[in-house]
Amino acid sequence: IETKLPKVGTTIFSVMSQLALEHKAVNLGQGFPDFEPPEPLREAITRAMAEGKNQYAPGVGIAKLREQIALKTERLYGHRVSPDTEVTVTSGATEALFSAIAAVVRAGDEVIVFDPCYDSYEPAIELQGATAVHIPLELPSFGIDWQRVREAITPKTRMILVNSPHNPSGAVLSRADLDELAAIVRDTPIIVLSDEVYEHIVFDGAEHQSVLRHEELAARSIVVSSFGKTYHCTGWKVGYAVAPKALTAEFRKVHQYLTFCTFNPAQWAFAEFLESTPEHYLELPAFYQAKRDRFRELLAPSRLKLLDVPGGYFQLVDYSAIRDVDDINFSEWLVREGGVAAIPLSPFYETAPDTRLVRLCFAKNDATMEAAAELLCKL
Amino acid sequence: IETKLPKVGTTIFSVMSQLALEHKAVNLGQGFPDFEPPEPLREAITRAMAEGKNQYAPGVGIAKLREQIALKTERLYGHRVSPDTEVTVTSGATEALFSAIAAVVRAGDEVIVFDPCYDSYEPAIELQGATAVHIPLELPSFGIDWQRVREAITPKTRMILVNSPHNPSGAVLSRADLDELAAIVRDTPIIVLSDEVYEHIVFDGAEHQSVLRHEELAARSIVVSSFGKTYHCTGWKVGYAVAPKALTAEFRKVHQYLTFCTFNPAQWAFAEFLESTPEHYLELPAFYQAKRDRFRELLAPSRLKLLDVPGGYFQLVDYSAIRDVDDINFSEWLVREGGVAAIPLSPFYETAPDTRLVRLCFAKNDATMEAAAELLCKL
Ligand SMILES: CSCCC(=O)C(=O)O
Ligand SMILES: CSCCC(=O)C(=O)O
Repeated sequence: IETKLPKVGTTIFSVMSQLALEHKAVNLGQGFPDFEPPEPLREAITRAMAEGKNQYAPGVGIAKLREQIALKTERLYGHRVSPDTEVTVTSGATEALFSAIAAVVRAGDEVIVFDPCYDSYEPAIELQGATAVHIPLELPSFGIDWQRVREAITPKTRMILVNSPHNPSGAVLSRADLDELAAIVRDTPIIVLSDEVYEHIVFDGAEHQSVLRHEELAARSIVVSSFGKTYHCTGWKVGYAVAPKALTAEFRKVHQYLTFCTFNPAQWAFAEFLESTPEHYLELPAFYQAKRDRFRELLAPSRLKLLDVPGGYFQLVDYSAIRDVDDINFSEWLVREGGVAAIPLSPFYETAPDTRLVRLCFAKNDATMEAAAELLCKL
Repeated sequence: IETKLPKVGTTIFSVMSQLALEHKAVNLGQGFPDFEPPEPLREAITRAMAEGKNQYAPGVGIAKLREQIALKTERLYGHRVSPDTEVTVTSGATEALFSAIAAVVRAGDEVIVFDPCYDSYEPAIELQGATAVHIPLELPSFGIDWQRVREAITPKTRMILVNSPHNPSGAVLSRADLDELAAIVRDTPIIVLSDEVYEHIVFDGAEHQSVLRHEELAARSIVVSSFGKTYHCTGWKVGYAVAPKALTAEFRKVHQYLTFCTFNPAQWAFAEFLESTPEHYLELPAFYQAKRDRFRELLAPSRLKLLDVPGGYFQLVDYSAIRDVDDINFSEWLVREGGVAAIPLSPFYETAPDTRLVRLCFAKNDATMEAAAELLCKL
C-alpha cells in the first residue's frame, strides 16, 4: 500500500516517550503532568457511571457541559455563544482540530500555519488534498511577522491557523496581533482556526487574548480548547470547539462521523466541576507560574540558556554551550546519556532554522523537576 | 461557508433520539442498551483513575489491551496478530472506520458499500474526494449479490466495505460469502474494510464469520470492532482496528492525528475485564437471543411483520398492514402518535427501495420491551 502521508512517521511525542521508557529517563518530553486531576473530578466520573451515564452522549456533547463552556466563554472573554448551536464537545482538541480542518478546507486550498507548529496540523491539511503554507515565527520571540502573512495570502488561502499560548514556545498573541489578523482576513473568505488549549496558562499577570475576545475575528473563527491541560488529565480526551452557527453546523457534520460522541461520564464530571469550582482554572496561572519559576531557578546553574516563557507549560532551552549538534541528535543523546527526555523543535518546522533549542515540560512535581535539573546541571 | 458535505444533515440517530425525548416516546431508535455495563468494568475505571492512569495513553493503545485483543482474535477466529504492529485502539468504531478510510482511500477512488449501509461510511468516503458505489442488498434476506459486486468493480475500486452482523438487518456473512469476496479482490489492489461491531451477537448457534477467519482476506483487510456493543457501554467509545502490519502503519499515521489516543482509564478496565472474564462475551449470544425471542413474542399479536434476525440487536419490522406511507413518514408518525421511536431505513440507502420497514432496537430491559410492545400492538 502506497502511503497517503509520505512525510509522516510516528509522532515525535510517541517516539520520545518510548525512548524515555527504554532508557528510564526523566520524561520532560511529551506534554503531560505527572500529578493527578482533582479528586472531585474523578469522583464525579465514578458517580456518573453509577448513575447510568454509560450510553451514547448526544453527538454534540451533553447540554449541561455545553452550557458551562458557554458560561466560561462569556465570563472570561466577554463573548456570548449559544450552547445549542455554537459549542461542540469533541474527543480531545486533536479531534476538534481535525474536524475543523476537514469541515472547511478543500482540495487545492492553502492553509497558513506558523512554524514551529503542532505536528497534527499539516497531516490534517494534507489529507484534504490542501497545502500547508509555513511561515516561520520570528526568533527568539516566536512572534508573528504580519507582513510575511500578508505576502503569503493568495486566492487559495482558506484558513489561517493560530496557536496561543504557543506550543512549543509559550509565546502569546497580543491584542495588536489579533487586530492585524482581523485586518488581513477582512473581506476575504478566510476562516481562522485558533488552537487555545493552554488558554488558562498565561503568566506575569497577562490576560489570554482569545480570538473570542475579538468580535470581528470570533465571527469567522473556530476556537479549539481542551480540558486535558486545564485539569491535569491529558488522557481523558475531552475537548471542544466554539464557532459561529454556520461554521459549527459544518464542523458538526464532520465531527458526527469522526467519533460521533465523547466518553459520556467525563462530560458530566466536567460540567459539574466547571459549575462548582470555577476557581480551579482561575488559579491555574499562579499554579503553573510557580512551577515555571521553580524550574528556572533549578536550571539556573546549568549551561542551558533559558528562553522566556510567557505561557503554556514548556521551557525552551538553548543547549549550544553543551553540544554543537542538531536538536534531534541532541535529544537522542540527552535521553540516552543525560537521562532526560526532551522534545526537539525541528519536527515542527518545514525548514528548521539553525537553532539549538529543545523543549522541556515543567508540568511536573517538584521531585521530578529536581531530578531532571540535577541531571541537566551535570551536562 | 459552502458545505463540503451537501448530502449530510444531522445523523438520523441524533434526530430520532431528540424526537423520542421531545415526545416522551419509548426509544427503540438509536442502538444502545438501557441496562448497564458490568459493575467490575466500572469499578476498574475508578481504580485506574485512582492508580493514576489519567495522562495520555500510547496513541496506539495500551499494550495490555492490545494483547488482550490479539488473544481474543486468536481464540475466536484462529488468527494470530501482533499486538505491537497489527492492533490499534481507537475512540470508538466510528473513529476506526474514518481512520481506515482516510488512510487508504484517495481522491478519485471508488469504495463499494452495501445499502442499507451505516450512515458514517459515505461522508468519510466523500471527505477523501472519493465516491461511494452503492450496491443494494437483496431483499428480504439482506444478502450480497456477488455478481453485482463483480460488475461494479472498476480500475478505480480501492475498497469494499462489508458489515457483518449487518446493521440494520442483522444479516450475517457466510463462509461462502467470504470466499466470493476473496475471489473478487484476489490480484487487485482492493482493501477490505470490515465493520464487525456486533461480532459477539450472532444467534441460533451460528458462528460469526469474521474476515479474520479467512487468512487470504485477513491479509488485505482492516477489521473494526468496539467494546460499546459488547459491554453495554456505547458511551465509553473504545474501539479498535486489526490489520496487517503495512495497513496498520498507514492506519496509525491517520489515527494519531485524528484523536491521538483514547480515554486511558477505560483501556485498563477493558484489558483487565477481557483477561478475567472472557465468559462475558461468550455468553452474549444467548443473552441477546433471549431478548430477541422475548421481543418477537411480545410483538406477535401486533400487525407488524417481523423479519428474521440472525445477529445484532435490531428487529426489522414491516409496518405495511398499519400505514401505507414511506418509512420517514411512518417513523415520525410513530414517535409522535404511537409513542415509540424507531429508525427508518431509507437514510441508509442511496436509492431506497419501496419497502415498508423500520428498525427497532431490542437491547432493552423487559419492562422497556413490554412498554413498547404494548404501544405497538395497539397500532
Ligand atoms: C498528543 S501528544 C502531545 C502532547 C502535547 O500537546 C505536546 O507534548 O506538545
Ligand atoms: C453512533 S449513533 C448510532 C448507533 C448505532 O450504531 C445505531 O443505532 O445503528
